[in-house]
Amino acid sequence: MIRIDATALGDLACGAAFLGSGGGGDPYHNRLLGEARIARRGPFELISLEQLADDALVVPCGWIGAPTVSIEKLPNGREAVDGLRRIERLTGRKVDAVLPIEIGGGNGLAPLIAAAELGIPVVDADGMARAFPESQMSIFSIHGLSGCPSILTGACGSLAIIETEDNHVHERIARQVSIALGGDAHMVEYPLTGRQTKDHAIPSSISTAIAIGAAIRDARQKGGDPFAALIAALQTSDLYPFGGILFDGKIVDLERETRGGFAMGRVAIEAFDGASRMDLEFQNENLIAWRNGAVCAMVPDIITIMDRETADSITTDRLKYGQRVKVLAAAAPHMLRSAEALSFVGPSAFGFAEDYVPIEALNGWDDR
Amino acid sequence: MIRIDATALGDLACGAAFLGSGGGGDPYHNRLLGEARIARRGPFELISLEQLADDALVVPCGWIGAPTVSIEKLPNGREAVDGLRRIERLTGRKVDAVLPIEIGGGNGLAPLIAAAELGIPVVDADGMARAFPESQMSIFSIHGLSGCPSILTGACGSLAIIETEDNHVHERIARQVSIALGGDAHMVEYPLTGRQTKDHAIPSSISTAIAIGAAIRDARQKGGDPFAALIAALQTSDLYPFGGILFDGKIVDLERETRGGFAMGRVAIEAFDGASRMDLEFQNENLIAWRNGAVCAMVPDIITIMDRETADSITTDRLKYGQRVKVLAAAAPHMLRSAEALSFVGPSAFGFAEDYVPIEALNGWDDR
Repeated sequence: MIRIDATALGDLACGAAFLGSGGGGDPYHNRLLGEARIARRGPFELISLEQLADDALVVPCGWIGAPTVSIEKLPNGREAVDGLRRIERLTGRKVDAVLPIEIGGGNGLAPLIAAAELGIPVVDADGMARAFPESQMSIFSIHGLSGCPSILTGACGSLAIIETEDNHVHERIARQVSIALGGDAHMVEYPLTGRQTKDHAIPSSISTAIAIGAAIRDARQKGGDPFAALIAALQTSDLYPFGGILFDGKIVDLERETRGGFAMGRVAIEAFDGASRMDLEFQNENLIAWRNGAVCAMVPDIITIMDRETADSITTDRLKYGQRVKVLAAAAPHMLRSAEALSFVGPSAFGFAEDYVPIEALNGWDDR
Repeated sequence: MIRIDATALGDLACGAAFLGSGGGGDPYHNRLLGEARIARRGPFELISLEQLADDALVVPCGWIGAPTVSIEKLPNGREAVDGLRRIERLTGRKVDAVLPIEIGGGNGLAPLIAAAELGIPVVDADGMARAFPESQMSIFSIHGLSGCPSILTGACGSLAIIETEDNHVHERIARQVSIALGGDAHMVEYPLTGRQTKDHAIPSSISTAIAIGAAIRDARQKGGDPFAALIAALQTSDLYPFGGILFDGKIVDLERETRGGFAMGRVAIEAFDGASRMDLEFQNENLIAWRNGAVCAMVPDIITIMDRETADSITTDRLKYGQRVKVLAAAAPHMLRSAEALSFVGPSAFGFAEDYVPIEALNGWDDR
């Protein structure tokens, strides 16, 4: 049992924001909710995958929608509980534990609050090892498990239950429902047995995010280099083999629109000497980065734009002209790099013509 | 018990197409399905509202989507049964009878086939007395009943269950789901008790549609004027007080697009002498007509464009440049003309600035 106090919650918010690759939603609101909860009722509790009974009902959950909407449109606070209660009625049994569908961004924190409300534990695991924009881009889907029954709940108290055998169709329906619910909704999906969770979930991703956040906090407190601390923390983690700095500069151009239920856009960053330039494209999450016109990082590797002074990760909905940033990349866990996984989460899954090349090959990081 | 044989089915297709006000879907496909069913298993059976037990479970159903899609994308044939079976599982009881959510267009016929499949009767009634493009535009919604739980089923075998207390939100979610399911889906909605059905449904609308179709067929067979026969049939019906011819001419312009899950557009018709012109706007259904720039018919009154030789009603998805047409209008039943009803189905519900004025006042038909 790992306990998450206010400090650990802050570390989790920091680490999850980095792992979000720009997406998963800004963690700020969930951090505030979590702190209030801890102040009132004490720390959150995490269990490890091993603590799950094989026949437990384990439900991944999180928010679906455009992060640009989620920072404007506040939830009613009952969405997650409404969805979890409804899946209990639908399946005729109690939910034993929840986990984040994605560790990245606010979605890495949101299940803590929902679980505490129901008095059930959160499993130290997730479904993506980062954040991805679409529902079928999860390790459960890659491994052939069904996303359904799935339940979306909205701030207006409305809900939709989706039942389909095709996880791409599930995503398509869920996305449209999220639009109808205002561009942002809570979703419980991929209901799992304890056995399936142990066999397929990304292990220890919550504690890894906390460790990453703690390393950054520690460096800040000691006047050290938070970027170096972040990179060191990745290298000592079991999940993310390594990371590095892709670029350093100032945001000189930004296009962002809410389209098809996503925050879609491009951002351009110029080096301070004007001699080089980085372009990134995002769909909620940063997907691909070009340095001087040449690809230097691609999904599923993590690409995060961070404030160059504070090392705060900047979600795609918070990007602004003139921000001074460093762009970091981290190698995706090996389970996201298989040929099967790449068909779900590689560049082709987002319509890019480029074949996936790992960041270490693109950046000469092979020898680290 | 009314029996619907192949002749009556053809009359129903003809009458429902007229009552569709251009929408409800082209009845052609459902007519073919119905004829095949009758050839194999005999006539369909209708019961009257009075035959319903007060505690019966009665489910209105029909297709939701853009008619432009429905004439291209064929169903898998199981959608209605899938939806009805799922609402039985959800409510824990058998469906006792179905009725068309709207008598207009193909949706006036579709429930016959679904009910025959399940071996249950269809009630001689409907929820709109015509066709309307949106789900909350039903007499049940006008009278304060809930559209939920509601179930959409798609040709891919996927389904979505919607639960909300707000019928406008229900429509918004259902519309988005219909888009995700390909632009066209089957929906069961407004589950009713027998008592509610008797108190609120539009009575005898199926038999009225059959009578209208029979009058047109009879006139054609005898070499009479089918438009005069149609108008006479309206006047002798209990539902539609009267009708008349608004315009006679040739389609000279047409704009139509599939937008937001609807067939949206405008059509212009010019008199053969070029001296006058009619403009109509539609959202699946014809909503409003202007003659020489002055409004001459408005929702909820029925406005149907018909082939001027055959008196076939032309649904909005079948309109073409050059068609020679008569435009007919019929007075909506009184229950759609109350102030409360007009807030759901009058011009303002579609965003028109014009106040509703009945066709008889607009066309000097008061003295009929």
